[in-house]
Amino acid sequence: MMLTVTLNAALDVSYRVPALVPHAVHRVTEVRERPGGKGVNVARVLAALGHETVVTGFVGGPTGTVLRDLLAPLAPHDALVPIAGTTRRTLAVIDATTGDTTQLNEPGPTVTADEWARFLDAYGALLRDADAVAICGSLPPGIHVGAYAELVRAARAADVPVLLDTSGEPLRRGIAARPDLVKPNVDELAQLTGAREPLRAALSARRRGAHAVAASLGPDGLLAATPDGNWHARTPTPVRGNPTGAGDSAVAALLAGLVDGVPWPERVARAVALSAATVLAPAAGEFDAAAYERLLPHVTVVERPPAG
Amino acid sequence: MMLTVTLNAALDVSYRVPALVPHAVHRVTEVRERPGGKGVNVARVLAALGHETVVTGFVGGPTGTVLRDLLAPLAPHDALVPIAGTTRRTLAVIDATTGDTTQLNEPGPTVTADEWARFLDAYGALLRDADAVAICGSLPPGIHVGAYAELVRAARAADVPVLLDTSGEPLRRGIAARPDLVKPNVDELAQLTGAREPLRAALSARRRGAHAVAASLGPDGLLAATPDGNWHARTPTPVRGNPTGAGDSAVAALLAGLVDGVPWPERVARAVALSAATVLAPAAGEFDAAAYERLLPHVTVVERPPAG
Repeated sequence: MMLTVTLNAALDVSYRVPALVPHAVHRVTEVRERPGGKGVNVARVLAALGHETVVTGFVGGPTGTVLRDLLAPLAPHDALVPIAGTTRRTLAVIDATTGDTTQLNEPGPTVTADEWARFLDAYGALLRDADAVAICGSLPPGIHVGAYAELVRAARAADVPVLLDTSGEPLRRGIAARPDLVKPNVDELAQLTGAREPLRAALSARRRGAHAVAASLGPDGLLAATPDGNWHARTPTPVRGNPTGAGDSAVAALLAGLVDGVPWPERVARAVALSAATVLAPAAGEFDAAAYERLLPHVTVVERPPAG
Repeated sequence: MMLTVTLNAALDVSYRVPALVPHAVHRVTEVRERPGGKGVNVARVLAALGHETVVTGFVGGPTGTVLRDLLAPLAPHDALVPIAGTTRRTLAVIDATTGDTTQLNEPGPTVTADEWARFLDAYGALLRDADAVAICGSLPPGIHVGAYAELVRAARAADVPVLLDTSGEPLRRGIAARPDLVKPNVDELAQLTGAREPLRAALSARRRGAHAVAASLGPDGLLAATPDGNWHARTPTPVRGNPTGAGDSAVAALLAGLVDGVPWPERVARAVALSAATVLAPAAGEFDAAAYERLLPHVTVVERPPAG
């Protein structure tokens, strides 16, 4: 099975309002809730691609109960670890006039040292049955900044391929623990390496310890720097829509490609097509399966020589 | 005991953000939750004034459970009626830079005919021990527009003094059922009667069936039209602060004054002082007891002759 880790899982709430006006009173016309956090989103896409998936991370409090209730009928198996704190909400306020979204993210519960130790035990047990693991998103308060490095090392010790999708200091430390793949965006990569040019930055991240780097370039697709070569994949024209979850779909495609031994050029093509099919789907974080099939043959993949 | 009715009870959530910028991503720095809905607020103020209070209305779902858990340690007794739907949230987004609040109110659960019938039974039983009842706020979806009129008639049949604080068509119908007191603001009163001049509008509302009318004039205080005469009460200068809950405090003071047989001039003075002490309190919906004692002697009450 495929394992995804979401230490800062969230209940994703969306409010639709006729128009968002600061300092005014709004009547919310539609309320939606779904289980969220990057790793949970990745698991849902992996399941839609036909993989057995398990989600772990932390869950607690009344919002945690709602998250679990909403997750129960979905394909990913729930192996979340209960904590005393309350799972955070993320709120997307959708302006029905402009279609724009204003995002309000709660910080998340503080995790205690005991809860972290319990998580490490659970994670170790889950790794025994995992074909690959994706570690995704931000760290909740209370967790040490080297936590993802610790999870990467545990996966490598268990001989389980590991993908890391985070940013900042947790990414820097995680890369040093030598994950199989990291998927930063260009800004995160520049922050990490000091290099603005994407290929130069990706190669620098490889030198820092990442076996392979897939840098998302937004509408310009994906740039992969790997031991087999470097490739830039993109759709013929940028797609328009809601980019929420596009990165999580790319992570799912990359992890599936890694487990299935798909060659890198095809692997990045699939990731780009699945990202674009997510942008095109009407619901945030879902993907349009027909669009994926339609787009995949049109994704261009260009080999890039190593930067001088 | 004092009974308050909140058919559309709410979990009041507040988010503090450094600055609210439409279409941006915000990290929420502080999350607070409290039991809400106008009748719940009125009950908390009544309890703080030393009255035994009971809250009823509807409660359901995970947010309903949180509301009840937060209400349990507070003074008002919980006689909320469970429903299948989920209690709404109201979200106040506080901009830490400007101090301004942006309000997002969920619509509330749909109440079924069976649930309404169960509520009527519970309400009838509670009226037997009630010294007075305050019926407050909006109607949740599914409840017929004459519902408040029905509750007013039941209170009158049980010989329990009844205050109605709502707006629109539920207020229009409620007034026709002859409540002892209504507390609209000037805009609601103008909408109801077509008269913009507050005293003229208040007298018109009395002719429509309200025994007495206390119209809130915002920073200009309160105007009461009663069988004993008409009075305008105000603080010497308008107070500055957060007006959230000021109207609910006025309702509590008016209901307490009614039960205690306080003469109208003193009754409106107390309502204005308690409103102002609520505006001055740092937390929304609380009141500053010292400010109340300090302000009360300074409230001016002017008798107004009936409008020609």
